[in-house]
Amino acid sequence: MLILQTVIELKEWVRDTKKAGKTIGLVPTMGFLHEGHLSLVEKAKAENDKVVMSIFVNPAQFGPNEDFDRYPRDLKRDQELAKRAGTDVIFAPRVDEMYPRESQIQLFAGAQADVLCGAKRPGHFDGVLKVVTKLFHLTEADLAYFGQKDAQQLAIIESFVTDFNFPMAIRRGETVREKDGLAKSSRNVYLSDAERNEAPHLRKALEMGKATFLKGQDPIESMTAYLTEHTSGKIDYIELLDYPTLTTTIQQDAILALAVQFEKARLIDNIIFNPKEN
Amino acid sequence: MLILQTVIELKEWVRDTKKAGKTIGLVPTMGFLHEGHLSLVEKAKAENDKVVMSIFVNPAQFGPNEDFDRYPRDLKRDQELAKRAGTDVIFAPRVDEMYPRESQIQLFAGAQADVLCGAKRPGHFDGVLKVVTKLFHLTEADLAYFGQKDAQQLAIIESFVTDFNFPMAIRRGETVREKDGLAKSSRNVYLSDAERNEAPHLRKALEMGKATFLKGQDPIESMTAYLTEHTSGKIDYIELLDYPTLTTTIQQDAILALAVQFEKARLIDNIIFNPKEN
Repeated sequence: MLILQTVIELKEWVRDTKKAGKTIGLVPTMGFLHEGHLSLVEKAKAENDKVVMSIFVNPAQFGPNEDFDRYPRDLKRDQELAKRAGTDVIFAPRVDEMYPRESQIQLFAGAQADVLCGAKRPGHFDGVLKVVTKLFHLTEADLAYFGQKDAQQLAIIESFVTDFNFPMAIRRGETVREKDGLAKSSRNVYLSDAERNEAPHLRKALEMGKATFLKGQDPIESMTAYLTEHTSGKIDYIELLDYPTLTTTIQQDAILALAVQFEKARLIDNIIFNPKEN
Repeated sequence: MLILQTVIELKEWVRDTKKAGKTIGLVPTMGFLHEGHLSLVEKAKAENDKVVMSIFVNPAQFGPNEDFDRYPRDLKRDQELAKRAGTDVIFAPRVDEMYPRESQIQLFAGAQADVLCGAKRPGHFDGVLKVVTKLFHLTEADLAYFGQKDAQQLAIIESFVTDFNFPMAIRRGETVREKDGLAKSSRNVYLSDAERNEAPHLRKALEMGKATFLKGQDPIESMTAYLTEHTSGKIDYIELLDYPTLTTTIQQDAILALAVQFEKARLIDNIIFNPKEN
C-alpha cells in the first residue's frame, strides 16, 4: 500500500494507473477509521481495479465552534486498518497541500442543505462540496463511495455529480452498526460510559418513529418523548423528509433522521425506507 | 467531423477516444464563429490528438435584461467554419440537454468577478463557471482554450482550474483583430455602420492609455475624454488592474480594459502588458 501526502505524487500515480487502463475507486474519509469506512473499501475493491482512500480532516466543513481541532486522528492505526482492508493508496495530505491559498470561488449547496444537519451547521455542506470536488478531480475516480449514515451528504453529493456532469458515479454504503444498534462513527469515542449506554436509543427511536409513521401518525412527538426519557442528550433535530430530494413531499423513499448533542459528541443517525413497501 | 447534440453521445465518444489513448482539446464557444475562435481551434489542433468545439449559448451567463434571445446564432455556417479549421467534434446541445433540471447547487466566482464586466453583469461569471464545469467534465479535456479578449473570464477560469484541481490546463489565445484594430467579436454584427467606423477607437484608446500609464500618469481620464470624443457609445468602464488577480495592486502584468455600450452592442477590449518590460 502506498501512502501519498502530496498532490503531485497522487497525480503521478493517477496518470500511470489510468494509462495502464485501470479503474479507480475512491473512499473519502476523515480518518479514525471504523467498520463503516472499511465496508466502503470492501465495496470499492469489488468494483474497481485500484482503491484510493483519502484521509483528510477538512477544515472547510467545520464551523468556527465545531470540533476541527479535537476531531480524533490516528494515522498510524488508520494505515494498518486500511491496508488490511485492501486499500491500494492512502492519500493523506496536509491542510496547506489541499488549500495552498484562499480560493475566491465558492460552492453553495443550496436548498438541500437547508434542513437536517445543514440547518444546524451553516456552510458545512459547502465545505464538503469543496473538498469532494478537489478529491474527485485529483483522483479521477470512476466511482466514489459514501456511507448512508451521512445521508444528507450523500444526497447533496449525488445531486452535485449529476448536475455538474462529473465523469464518475457515486455508490452508497449501508450504515454499519455496533451490536446494540449504535451507528459506527469516529465521534463515538467522545461519549462518556453513561452516554455510550444511552446511545443505542437513537436507533430505537428511529425504528419506533418509522412504525408510528407507517400507522399514519406523526412520529416526531413520540420520538422526542422517547429520546428525552432515555438519553441525557439534547435533541438537535428530528425530521421526516423525502429522500434524496430532502423536501417535505415524500414521493418514493422517506428519510427519518435525527441528531442528538451529548456532552462532547453530536451523534446523527437515520433510516431510509419506502413507505409503500412497508 | 462529428456533430453531437446529446450528452450521452458525447460521453460515448469521449470514452472511446480516451480508451484509444488520445488527448482531447476543448474550445468552448457560444457559436457565431469568427477568426478568434478559429485561432483557438488551430492552437488546440497543434497540442491535442482530437479537438472538440462546444457551441452553446449559455443562458446561465446572461442577465434577465441581456441579449440571450437575440445573441447571434448560425449553426450551419459555424459547422462549415469549424470543419474547415480542423475541428473533430462539434458539441451543440440544446438548453434542456445541458440543464435538464434546476440545480440547487451554485458556484460563486467571488472577488475576481467584482470588477470590470463582473461588476456590471451580476451573476455572469457564476453562470460561466457553471457551464465550463459541465463542459470540462463532459469532454474530459486535457486542455481547454479561451481567448484573451475575455480576459476576466480567462483569469477566473484559470483560478477555478487551479483552486479546484481540475485534471486539465487552460491555454490562452491572443485577441484576434480586424485590420483596423477592432477586436473580433460575435457581437460586432450588432453595430450600425456608423458605430462600426467608430469601434476601432476602443483599441486606440487602450494603446493611448497604456502609453500614458507608462509615462507615470493615470490613463483613465484621458481615455474617457478620447472615447467620448471619438465614439457615440456610452463608456461602461475603463479600469487598470493587476492581471490575473484583478486586484488594484499591480505585481507583474497589468490589464487595461474597457467596455463601451453602443446602441445594440456592448463591446469590450483590453490589453495586458508588463509595465517593467515597457
